[in-house]
Amino acid sequence: MKKDLGRINGKTQLIGLFATPIGHSLSPAMHNLAFKKLGLNYAYLAFEVGNEQLEDVVTGMRALNVRGFNVSMPNKMNILPYLDELADSAKFTGAVNTVVNENGRLIGHSTDGMGYVRNLKEHGIDITGKKMTLVGSGGAATPIAIQSALEGLGEISIFARNDAFFEKAEENVRIINEEMKGSSCKAKVFPLEDQDALRAEIASSDIFTNGTGVGMKPLEGLSVIEDTSMLRPDLIVTDVVYNPVTSKLLEQAQAAGCNTINGLGMMLWQGAMAFEYWTGREMPVQYIKEQMFE
Amino acid sequence: MKKDLGRINGKTQLIGLFATPIGHSLSPAMHNLAFKKLGLNYAYLAFEVGNEQLEDVVTGMRALNVRGFNVSMPNKMNILPYLDELADSAKFTGAVNTVVNENGRLIGHSTDGMGYVRNLKEHGIDITGKKMTLVGSGGAATPIAIQSALEGLGEISIFARNDAFFEKAEENVRIINEEMKGSSCKAKVFPLEDQDALRAEIASSDIFTNGTGVGMKPLEGLSVIEDTSMLRPDLIVTDVVYNPVTSKLLEQAQAAGCNTINGLGMMLWQGAMAFEYWTGREMPVQYIKEQMFE
Repeated sequence: MKKDLGRINGKTQLIGLFATPIGHSLSPAMHNLAFKKLGLNYAYLAFEVGNEQLEDVVTGMRALNVRGFNVSMPNKMNILPYLDELADSAKFTGAVNTVVNENGRLIGHSTDGMGYVRNLKEHGIDITGKKMTLVGSGGAATPIAIQSALEGLGEISIFARNDAFFEKAEENVRIINEEMKGSSCKAKVFPLEDQDALRAEIASSDIFTNGTGVGMKPLEGLSVIEDTSMLRPDLIVTDVVYNPVTSKLLEQAQAAGCNTINGLGMMLWQGAMAFEYWTGREMPVQYIKEQMFE
Repeated sequence: MKKDLGRINGKTQLIGLFATPIGHSLSPAMHNLAFKKLGLNYAYLAFEVGNEQLEDVVTGMRALNVRGFNVSMPNKMNILPYLDELADSAKFTGAVNTVVNENGRLIGHSTDGMGYVRNLKEHGIDITGKKMTLVGSGGAATPIAIQSALEGLGEISIFARNDAFFEKAEENVRIINEEMKGSSCKAKVFPLEDQDALRAEIASSDIFTNGTGVGMKPLEGLSVIEDTSMLRPDLIVTDVVYNPVTSKLLEQAQAAGCNTINGLGMMLWQGAMAFEYWTGREMPVQYIKEQMFE
């Protein structure tokens, strides 16, 4: 054959994302840019897949012997029964976003929390032995709590609204305190309505984290903090929200002199961790960030 | 997002090729070049899939609701039970190379023969009412015979070696004569060993076609014609072989003053027919040929 005919060829390997809706996912752009930058012969494609199609899709991926794939909502929990093994990140969160095919065995991982912890590290913050106050127990907050506990956090106080999220928060606390062998993290749970407890826990924390969608559409302009006197300059304030770039909470925190970190790094690094599981290579995160967001 | 980040994105649709071995397939290069040239958002990826994985792969493709896919050896016949419907091209050849998803129903087609007939058309040759002598009854010869009969060939004489291929040749003849409603093609079968019959049938034919691998590795330098006095200047001689570009048979035919056509056009046009089923667009065959072969 005469020429180099471009990046996709007979050896190109598929990495799929199975979710619905997938229209606004940033993952295809992120991974394909990284594959191209590093000269890796993969193509990352997104497919509209809901719970009904999921089992058959996993069957197909096994038969194709792909290296791995991502799942996102609404499949993160429903995929568990179709996998052969769960890494701790997935087992303790009860959710999977990344699947890796190890010699025909499909291993589930949750890289969201890893992305959070790794992003803190990139900002010079080591969570070992630290105390965190976290708001939330949903799809973003749970992996933050679980992975932080797995990676050496000393103490975590979880606040959740007094509804179904509160039960999930209690469950996360129970898992951290009772199920994690080798973790010495102490977890406690509080109703978000208890503002006195929130003030006290933040006061003794190194890190305050919003793990909810408060601050992004349709809750843009809102914050989980009502009384900004709870914030102080040596508090690190992180938010899973990155659109807007500076959420109401991070505005409040910046005004109070806090070191603030938005959710973009967590999003990029959760992808980078998946990328590394599949390819064994480090994703060029800074390059991706520049290309996609600057 | 800041920039156009390249061709693969969250809307890119997968077209797979399922075969083994797939290492040397030209289809990924051909289709991806065509998608790029026409600005169509598809990626054509090849997967090592044998009969054992095939059913699960089809299950997966249904669940992903892909627009279609190709299969090649060893799956062209084994895929039949997993499809919902067969087009005539597939039903009469008993083989499928192209699957199209029509609103959730998987329709099997065989575009190899269509590619052969279409390529003749591109060379100004209309097979309607013509007589062809064809050697072979395998994976290339069968679709040539079947599709030519479907598209108006008047008469076909099929020669095959006196072994299992002869039974398949008899079967092809029976299908053309008895099963094809609306086709008036008359088919006959002869043992390839009968050189007198071969001479007589060629003498009354407009087209002589080699549908076997004789002339390509490991049979390079060989020809199905021993006595070149069977060839005459107004005979059209076609070969499924395109590597070498000029097979021994086509050398003989050129020496005899015949119009000759090698197998490259059939290969390109079978892809073009599949491409058109999936996308509704004409593949830029001339451009592909220039990029890949010139």
